[in-house]
Amino acid sequence: MAFDEHQFIAWATSGGPGNCTVGAGDDAAVLADGTVVALDTIVEGVHFEKGVAPDLLAQKAVGSCLSDLCAMGAVAETVFVSAQLSPGCDGRSLAEALAGWCADFGVVLAGGDTVRAPEGALALSVTAVGRCDGAPWLRSGGQPEDLLVLTGPLGGSRGGRHLRVKPRQDVVRKVKEDGLTVHACIDVSDGLGIDLSRLCRASGVGALVKAEQLPIHSDVGRERDGLAAALGDGEDFELLLAMPAGSSLPPEWVPIGTLLTRGSLLLERHGDSFPWPETGHVHSI
Amino acid sequence: MAFDEHQFIAWATSGGPGNCTVGAGDDAAVLADGTVVALDTIVEGVHFEKGVAPDLLAQKAVGSCLSDLCAMGAVAETVFVSAQLSPGCDGRSLAEALAGWCADFGVVLAGGDTVRAPEGALALSVTAVGRCDGAPWLRSGGQPEDLLVLTGPLGGSRGGRHLRVKPRQDVVRKVKEDGLTVHACIDVSDGLGIDLSRLCRASGVGALVKAEQLPIHSDVGRERDGLAAALGDGEDFELLLAMPAGSSLPPEWVPIGTLLTRGSLLLERHGDSFPWPETGHVHSI
Repeated sequence: MAFDEHQFIAWATSGGPGNCTVGAGDDAAVLADGTVVALDTIVEGVHFEKGVAPDLLAQKAVGSCLSDLCAMGAVAETVFVSAQLSPGCDGRSLAEALAGWCADFGVVLAGGDTVRAPEGALALSVTAVGRCDGAPWLRSGGQPEDLLVLTGPLGGSRGGRHLRVKPRQDVVRKVKEDGLTVHACIDVSDGLGIDLSRLCRASGVGALVKAEQLPIHSDVGRERDGLAAALGDGEDFELLLAMPAGSSLPPEWVPIGTLLTRGSLLLERHGDSFPWPETGHVHSI
Repeated sequence: MAFDEHQFIAWATSGGPGNCTVGAGDDAAVLADGTVVALDTIVEGVHFEKGVAPDLLAQKAVGSCLSDLCAMGAVAETVFVSAQLSPGCDGRSLAEALAGWCADFGVVLAGGDTVRAPEGALALSVTAVGRCDGAPWLRSGGQPEDLLVLTGPLGGSRGGRHLRVKPRQDVVRKVKEDGLTVHACIDVSDGLGIDLSRLCRASGVGALVKAEQLPIHSDVGRERDGLAAALGDGEDFELLLAMPAGSSLPPEWVPIGTLLTRGSLLLERHGDSFPWPETGHVHSI
């Protein structure tokens, strides 16, 4: 999964700096010895607003990076944090919160650095290192006729849930315990609209999703279009799995459609098929 | 080398955000499977001035992180870069430069992320992953009577050399090729004044350094006190090694003193001994 220069440039410039991809087009990089590494950065004014409590920042920073490892089917072992502390920021509370969340998530906070940052530019960059017990779940592994499965409801995260990230480490455990098979996976960070498109493009397949089956989160207000919220809000940190047809799913996982042979992405609603709305969150608050 | 919460807090708050330590009190962390991980972040207005060319930023960011792995005696294999791009910054040139420097340093640029950053807060956070062929060179391994060795001259880096970081990967190779023994090591990033103190504290030893033997870099202007520059400027990225007395050194490495049994750090000058000046660079430009 090494980058060559061309890939790196494509990555660093695709969609401009709003784009956020880790590893050579997947959620994390898999090194030659099987080590899986993900890196995730959150910046004040971009991913969170000034004044957010240190505990929430720590949860978001560590949780969203660990979510990338979950999307690879990897178990995180160690975390490194680079804290860019702006003037007046409460470094001690942030350090306590980072240590606390690492403990909660069962990973070792093995190091990092602290540096000064300009006013208004508090940032946390988290690197998570882990490994897979078996082959990693790549975005590219999806096969025609696979079941598309969501591990939980989507939408409305920006009411506050986008900070309270709960990486789905339990899904990785459950797949192993139940002997399930996962062909492909991505975590829904930018919105199902974008993230399903990414999985399909990487796998070279199409998809048909049934709008009526999409689980909408109760955080989506009644005044909003639930479908639009589920597709476009992002920051859900649920996993989107492609699994063999006929897989026996845990009750809380939701089948939302199937992968198709190379072709279109379609959304089926009220019996009609529509082009897939490739919308999503572009990393503004 | 795992952090517990207490250690993490001590780390993140010691000296405030000007402090810059990677790993639990060493230059990098050594994971259970022998993987060595270092993390280094540079921020606009703190580690470099606005307008610095992308090529220099990339060299400094990648080079200083790789220097941390060199200080552990580790060979870097992969690098991950989190680029926080402020408005108007030339992401393409930066990406090209990052890819170019990784290639020059012989490491794989395996991934990362790009995010937006506020105006004036361009930052690069680099994670380097590698391994040691043998035991890592810890700061804590120094023994009384060890020879203190510098791999090159110090001082004057802030005239521009602090950006043109050349991590001493050749030193790690040379130690292996020549079958040399290294008891302890640190890279001189904050200045010999601070960095020797760190090595001695970690090793529980004292030291005697001969001022006349300190190699002064030609970048130190004639109007400056060469000794003060060598001790305090920092950002040299030479390695300070503690090696067994009588070690056969490559010609360009310079013995500057010896480690002593637990006790004082002393600077010998013109035949007199002075308390060691624990001065150094505190990560302002």
